[in-house]
Amino acid sequence: MRLSRYFLPILKENPREAEIVSHRLMLRAGMIRQQGAGSFSWLPLGKKVLDKVCRIIREEQDRAGALEILMPTIQSADLWRESGRYEDYGKEMLRIKDRHERDMLFGPTNEEMVTEIFRSYIKSYKDLPLNLYHIQWKFRDEVRPRFGVMRSREFLMKDAYSFDLDFEGAKAAYNRMFVSYLRTFTRMGLKAIPMRADTGPIGGDLSHEFIILADTGESEVFCHRDYLDLKVPGEATDFTNDDEIAGIVRDWTTPYAATDEMHDEAAWDKIAEGDRLSARGIEVGHIFHFGDKYSKPMGAKVTGPDGKDHNVSMGSYGIGPTRLIAAIIEASHDENGIIWPESVAPFDVGIINMKAGDAECDRVCDELYSKLTAAGRDVLYDDTDQRPGGKFATADLIGLPWQMIVGPRGVAAGEIEIKNRRTGERETLPIEAATKRLGAA
Amino acid sequence: MRLSRYFLPILKENPREAEIVSHRLMLRAGMIRQQGAGSFSWLPLGKKVLDKVCRIIREEQDRAGALEILMPTIQSADLWRESGRYEDYGKEMLRIKDRHERDMLFGPTNEEMVTEIFRSYIKSYKDLPLNLYHIQWKFRDEVRPRFGVMRSREFLMKDAYSFDLDFEGAKAAYNRMFVSYLRTFTRMGLKAIPMRADTGPIGGDLSHEFIILADTGESEVFCHRDYLDLKVPGEATDFTNDDEIAGIVRDWTTPYAATDEMHDEAAWDKIAEGDRLSARGIEVGHIFHFGDKYSKPMGAKVTGPDGKDHNVSMGSYGIGPTRLIAAIIEASHDENGIIWPESVAPFDVGIINMKAGDAECDRVCDELYSKLTAAGRDVLYDDTDQRPGGKFATADLIGLPWQMIVGPRGVAAGEIEIKNRRTGERETLPIEAATKRLGAA
Repeated sequence: MRLSRYFLPILKENPREAEIVSHRLMLRAGMIRQQGAGSFSWLPLGKKVLDKVCRIIREEQDRAGALEILMPTIQSADLWRESGRYEDYGKEMLRIKDRHERDMLFGPTNEEMVTEIFRSYIKSYKDLPLNLYHIQWKFRDEVRPRFGVMRSREFLMKDAYSFDLDFEGAKAAYNRMFVSYLRTFTRMGLKAIPMRADTGPIGGDLSHEFIILADTGESEVFCHRDYLDLKVPGEATDFTNDDEIAGIVRDWTTPYAATDEMHDEAAWDKIAEGDRLSARGIEVGHIFHFGDKYSKPMGAKVTGPDGKDHNVSMGSYGIGPTRLIAAIIEASHDENGIIWPESVAPFDVGIINMKAGDAECDRVCDELYSKLTAAGRDVLYDDTDQRPGGKFATADLIGLPWQMIVGPRGVAAGEIEIKNRRTGERETLPIEAATKRLGAA
Repeated sequence: MRLSRYFLPILKENPREAEIVSHRLMLRAGMIRQQGAGSFSWLPLGKKVLDKVCRIIREEQDRAGALEILMPTIQSADLWRESGRYEDYGKEMLRIKDRHERDMLFGPTNEEMVTEIFRSYIKSYKDLPLNLYHIQWKFRDEVRPRFGVMRSREFLMKDAYSFDLDFEGAKAAYNRMFVSYLRTFTRMGLKAIPMRADTGPIGGDLSHEFIILADTGESEVFCHRDYLDLKVPGEATDFTNDDEIAGIVRDWTTPYAATDEMHDEAAWDKIAEGDRLSARGIEVGHIFHFGDKYSKPMGAKVTGPDGKDHNVSMGSYGIGPTRLIAAIIEASHDENGIIWPESVAPFDVGIINMKAGDAECDRVCDELYSKLTAAGRDVLYDDTDQRPGGKFATADLIGLPWQMIVGPRGVAAGEIEIKNRRTGERETLPIEAATKRLGAA
């Protein structure tokens, strides 16, 4: 993409309304625009990051055997009356009446609807296990939305729902999502640690929050230093092998890890002081087994191998892609702007033409641009007539992992400079070598 | 995808509520499930088609220079009061109050919001032309939603909005979208004909509906037979060349074409009888120039080269991907089910194992499946223990363009059968030749 044809509304000033660094940087980098209380448009740069984040989530959900569907945002109140949640849910639920005065709502979550889909079609244990997910907009009418997309009212959520014959099956499904989440966050350059979460009236120990470590995190977390070195399961992980998956979950739940809420001082004291890691964290995912909480009142049952009806045992698994983007920025930025992990960067490479209009600079830039693009790299080419200082500041602010700096003096010598955003390292290379380094032959 | 692990709830009976063939087939093929009046979930098969349709739309929008953003579904009523449409819009608009009793609405369209984005950032003609689009859920509270996703209340829409300094620029932007639409529909295997639409109080001739021909279409259309042979612009089309683009628009607007509403009997009579094509059609896209209708009341202006302020000249360009899928089915089906154009088929190839459990059949199928998948083909492998007749019926119903039929007798002879869904042609080939034919070496 040529910057002269792009829409990248960079803000020079720090927006006053932004209380946290991710909100500030997303506004300054022209990723989002606020449209109302807790409501944001995603501008082109933000939309590109959102797509890359959703793509990784999808790939890992699919790999773990989940199937993608897409449920509508507006739901009928009657469905929620079946589970009893229509009355229970407080003012966070956005309630709506249509032209015929029918009660509807903007879905804050989809347990009821997906259970309705399940019970309409699935009648036998032979069709299990089943895990259906979708990525769809949710609305929760928070009293005081804030922190940008970290806590907005309208937000994107990936929510998966598993259906199994019994607890054993549900636990295997839970484990698959557990491992899928480890892979998902790692692929986005995050260090995510699963921490036991409160299961409330359901009981049991099958609820985990995935917390990433970030100095500016919202809450305090406690864990064993071992987590920093635990191996994240690779691409070859066999999700159809329940024992293999359970083994990974065991490894990742054995060392101590707890949020402030679930912290156990006695257990903490038993850990050697040098092994204790007390840090700030941000919740980026939540998985939860809830058994027959919905299947029972809503009549979602299957015939088992015993010929009898069984209420299916369910779990739900959430990641908020929009919130996750803010979390990535909280975990990865410096005073100059965002530092994107390469997998979710809006563009892989920036080309900075230091003297747009200079025939040689233009020629070299055009050539780099077409070579890298042809090699499948996503390139932002700054072909504007801004001054070099402004171009550098923009490239750093929007966090492009690699920058190629093309100036008249270097071009005369057949050289360009490449800069790594994360390390700040700059290197001058012959043009061809630089092109090769960044992935084009 | 192995069918045994997929969620494909085929209906044996024709659903009574479905009045048109696309609705019937989408329900029967397990593509969608109705969740309420005019509200549908997209099940895995439907979601795959939706993704492919959206992808083509995106590629052609991007090619024409439009930039993708994503605006929220919920909008503030205040924004619509600025344009005067909050009061004008009837009961089709879903009006909502939040917990603080603020008036909001579920966006039926986005002219106001995109104009607000524009005016917040763009101040100079130098930043034009600009065309922003998004693909987002809309809600229109129809009195009587029907025909499945052809006329639902919650539906997906790609809406693009162009901003230009003056009418000349706006016309060039309009032409780019016109050509982009021709390419978009052609890539989906559709014959789309642009027909002049009513511009209402705006006036002028810059409004076209894109109508596809389908025997079961909703309305009568009239056009010159020349349209059937007009060349659709290729990939090499230069969208930065206004003259080239205007030439294409001229070619595609010269022969007579009109919807029932805009039909001109006198002009029709002048066409030789053999050249008259009177058919049924379905509207799948609409492009519209509306000048300063929103920019003026909302104060969206830029400084021109003359140093003065100008209200920007705008247009909007819509395609409904969910509706479009129904239209594709109306245009392409037979008594056995859907016949997908290859570009939007949920899977490229189906493998039908006639005797799952037979060691040789399983081995050949597994090998075909991994070879085709490795070659990037999207394959649905029917590895279930259903009878062959049922498997054939399913493959035809869901419309897979190519079917590979693997039975014990053929396998013993080193052969399999391939079937083309559209022509019904079957051919027996050596296994390797069949694999090659369907795209794997």
